[in-house]
Amino acid sequence: MRARSSTGSVDLTAPEAAEQRRSIRKYTSETIPESELRDMLRLAGRAPSAWNLQPWRFVVVRDPALKEQLMAVANKQAQVGRAPAVIVLYSDMNDVLAHLDEVAPTGDAASWQARIQRYFEGLTPAERAAWGNAQTFTALGWLLLIAESRGYATSPMLGFNPEGVKALLGLPPTAVVAALMAVGHGAEERRLGARHAVDRVAQFR
Amino acid sequence: MRARSSTGSVDLTAPEAAEQRRSIRKYTSETIPESELRDMLRLAGRAPSAWNLQPWRFVVVRDPALKEQLMAVANKQAQVGRAPAVIVLYSDMNDVLAHLDEVAPTGDAASWQARIQRYFEGLTPAERAAWGNAQTFTALGWLLLIAESRGYATSPMLGFNPEGVKALLGLPPTAVVAALMAVGHGAEERRLGARHAVDRVAQFR
Repeated sequence: MRARSSTGSVDLTAPEAAEQRRSIRKYTSETIPESELRDMLRLAGRAPSAWNLQPWRFVVVRDPALKEQLMAVANKQAQVGRAPAVIVLYSDMNDVLAHLDEVAPTGDAASWQARIQRYFEGLTPAERAAWGNAQTFTALGWLLLIAESRGYATSPMLGFNPEGVKALLGLPPTAVVAALMAVGHGAEERRLGARHAVDRVAQFR
Repeated sequence: MRARSSTGSVDLTAPEAAEQRRSIRKYTSETIPESELRDMLRLAGRAPSAWNLQPWRFVVVRDPALKEQLMAVANKQAQVGRAPAVIVLYSDMNDVLAHLDEVAPTGDAASWQARIQRYFEGLTPAERAAWGNAQTFTALGWLLLIAESRGYATSPMLGFNPEGVKALLGLPPTAVVAALMAVGHGAEERRLGARHAVDRVAQFR
């Protein structure tokens, strides 16, 4: 059965959302209910990750003054100020590895944890950080499609000063900021950038 | 209107797909029509990327002998052999930067290309590779939700020998393999690993 969002509109299928989604930089002043933001983050958090480690973390910024400060460390991109919410996606492998017990499979948890710790001890700090960062983009992908399906416009951003974002939000030094994502009710037309044809990017063997 | 896939079943909404998706390791022998694989890759390729650079590339492996060889360089994970198709997702920033003209916006293309080249010249080769790799996980996220919505089971894998995969498939030295994704008709029950509560991973400000 097709679900209804809190706005009463009908959710799009994933292919429909993928087909129509565009990055939107202008937003109306209408806010998003916190319950709706929470549900979208809950669903994005069901994304798969290696060993189910779920390295992603989120800060939802709605406070206007804080959004202005965030804009200042995000190359002054206007959508940070315009959107009713900006979600900062980051990973923190120190937090992940310090709390493996929270995600360990039932039974055999001790040897499982030891195996994971051994794996990450074999990586450099930069490799560990890149591992968590890359998988945070899986959650970003889910969040983008889920928001579009629910009728919200989005704009992911990679242009920001990572240390500035971390300092502003009080994130731990080990945090790696993956992306910012503006989300709200779109107030401009959708324009699709050119996309590669399937044969340009895919081989079939 | 809710779309119908080539199998005649009704596509799930993105939230429904996110809610029910699980990683599946057993598959029936039923294949996926190439037209369906192509359409899922086309839709995943509509994922957003910074400057619309679309750094992701795909190799769809269906040939049984090639799948056996792929399994050998993927920690012998049985789903590589069992699934009718395994999609290798990789990025190649050399390919991206050598063909910026293919994705340049209309008008002003020359100064746009010069700006992008300057940005990436300021990164180390490892940083460039990590940039492309991370965003390939956005496309992986879309592919996972789109496949689920269309009724296909999936299993993403990060456990493989990257150099072995590249040699087997003849990928360029500059390719960075992000993930393998088995896809097909599931033949086991869905089991959800524990997920963090929203309040464990998200702050609202």
